[in-house]
Amino acid sequence: MCQLLGMNCNVPTDICFSFAGFRARGGLTDHHRDGWGIAFFEGAGARVFLDPSPSADSPVAELVKHYPIRSLNVIAHIRKATQGEVRLENTHPFQRELWGRYWIFAHNGNLKNFAPTLTGRFQPVGTTDSELAFCYLLDRLAQRFPQGTRDIAELHAELHAELRALAIEIGSHGEFNFLLSDGNQLFAHCSSRLCYIVRKAPFPVAHLADEDLTVDFNEVTTPLDRVAVIATTPLTDNECWTQIAPGNLLAFRDGEPVALRDTTTVAQDYPRGTVTNA
Amino acid sequence: MCQLLGMNCNVPTDICFSFAGFRARGGLTDHHRDGWGIAFFEGAGARVFLDPSPSADSPVAELVKHYPIRSLNVIAHIRKATQGEVRLENTHPFQRELWGRYWIFAHNGNLKNFAPTLTGRFQPVGTTDSELAFCYLLDRLAQRFPQGTRDIAELHAELHAELRALAIEIGSHGEFNFLLSDGNQLFAHCSSRLCYIVRKAPFPVAHLADEDLTVDFNEVTTPLDRVAVIATTPLTDNECWTQIAPGNLLAFRDGEPVALRDTTTVAQDYPRGTVTNA
Repeated sequence: MCQLLGMNCNVPTDICFSFAGFRARGGLTDHHRDGWGIAFFEGAGARVFLDPSPSADSPVAELVKHYPIRSLNVIAHIRKATQGEVRLENTHPFQRELWGRYWIFAHNGNLKNFAPTLTGRFQPVGTTDSELAFCYLLDRLAQRFPQGTRDIAELHAELHAELRALAIEIGSHGEFNFLLSDGNQLFAHCSSRLCYIVRKAPFPVAHLADEDLTVDFNEVTTPLDRVAVIATTPLTDNECWTQIAPGNLLAFRDGEPVALRDTTTVAQDYPRGTVTNA
Repeated sequence: MCQLLGMNCNVPTDICFSFAGFRARGGLTDHHRDGWGIAFFEGAGARVFLDPSPSADSPVAELVKHYPIRSLNVIAHIRKATQGEVRLENTHPFQRELWGRYWIFAHNGNLKNFAPTLTGRFQPVGTTDSELAFCYLLDRLAQRFPQGTRDIAELHAELHAELRALAIEIGSHGEFNFLLSDGNQLFAHCSSRLCYIVRKAPFPVAHLADEDLTVDFNEVTTPLDRVAVIATTPLTDNECWTQIAPGNLLAFRDGEPVALRDTTTVAQDYPRGTVTNA
């Protein structure tokens, strides 16, 4: 299995603190040694750093840790291969363009007997179930919204509902936790395990679960900042993370989750100060 | 105007030496300060490093310089903005997927009154003439070869001819030097200035034109290695570079150029030891 990390904010924010702990899981504090990747949206552009080597040893990860790229939407992934060899083309997150926007996708889980029919517009380059699911998602979105506009905000509710239906359809083939972003919003789907935290004023002093590192966010933020961090399991051991109920797709915008109206979000709090591996 | 750098090899090779000189042109020895990028194919996968800041000061460029990523096909670009603001989404090289392969594109030149009709399958994210030309190229290829196969080799001659026709068509709007690769081969189109060198045994001792750096390739290669380097202007000042005649599209495979049968390549040699800015 793999690990996911996402960030969605109302002001461009660097992910250095969370990434430091997340990265340790790629070979140091956990066994996800089969590559890693991270994508940052900056305006309409996206920067994707991929490395098929373990994140704990990666010079690219070292750069990302020390070079504060500020972004409204970030998606990162460390891999424990289930389907597809350890190769660059099988390294998450994956990127495609649809409606003149980049889309970034990363998956945690394992899909079995998943062989959808594709139109050919989006085709996997590698051999993972994850990239196939991403291509299928975009293929269906392109068919459902052929006139897709640059102002995705207009389509928001419809897009959210369509993605929810697709997540349920694909999820019938197995575990399908994923993060997806077009730079405007970040979708987080929980099939088995995915949690989040919203940090806003008054900001906490947070301590990483995977490294002995503490940060006082009051020193690096303004009172109006709001930052949502989404992860497979909590990254800090002294904050209260909210588990996303299995079967839910949240859309994070401006640093907070917007639930789909017709779904019920059953938030389950993790006990404070506990690293839960739910 | 911008500067292009490409590499095509018969064995995975690092581009550290050429990149050291090329990078200096992004703010040190030349004025291309409006961002830079480099893409490496590794197997079917591609790694694209983009930075809208000058390459001479970029921490990402520092990483690329010291982290020897070995690749069969590399495309790099440093930007002097003509059309489109200095933003990440306007930074070359650009990436899309077609036929289950990644395609990478970078352009040097300036297209005027270029407003082609696109089907919508490939749409620009940024506002450059370059990305628009790339989307148009892929759009036309997708229409011309709807059954595009993973074995691009089969299509090679037809693909080359189609690209040549498209390059001439787009080039009627202005300067259109470009590098394009699908990981199997690297296409280099010269509209005004682009040159290349093929290094093979016995390997030279090469000296950079933009930095006082020398490398003896005999120490880092085997006798069977063959490496083609393509650049806007020669990167070394003690080797003989070949200018690609304007109007020609070369396909580099296994470290050497394959000219299209129905075109005439008029090779113009630069005087040895001279940095020519033709």
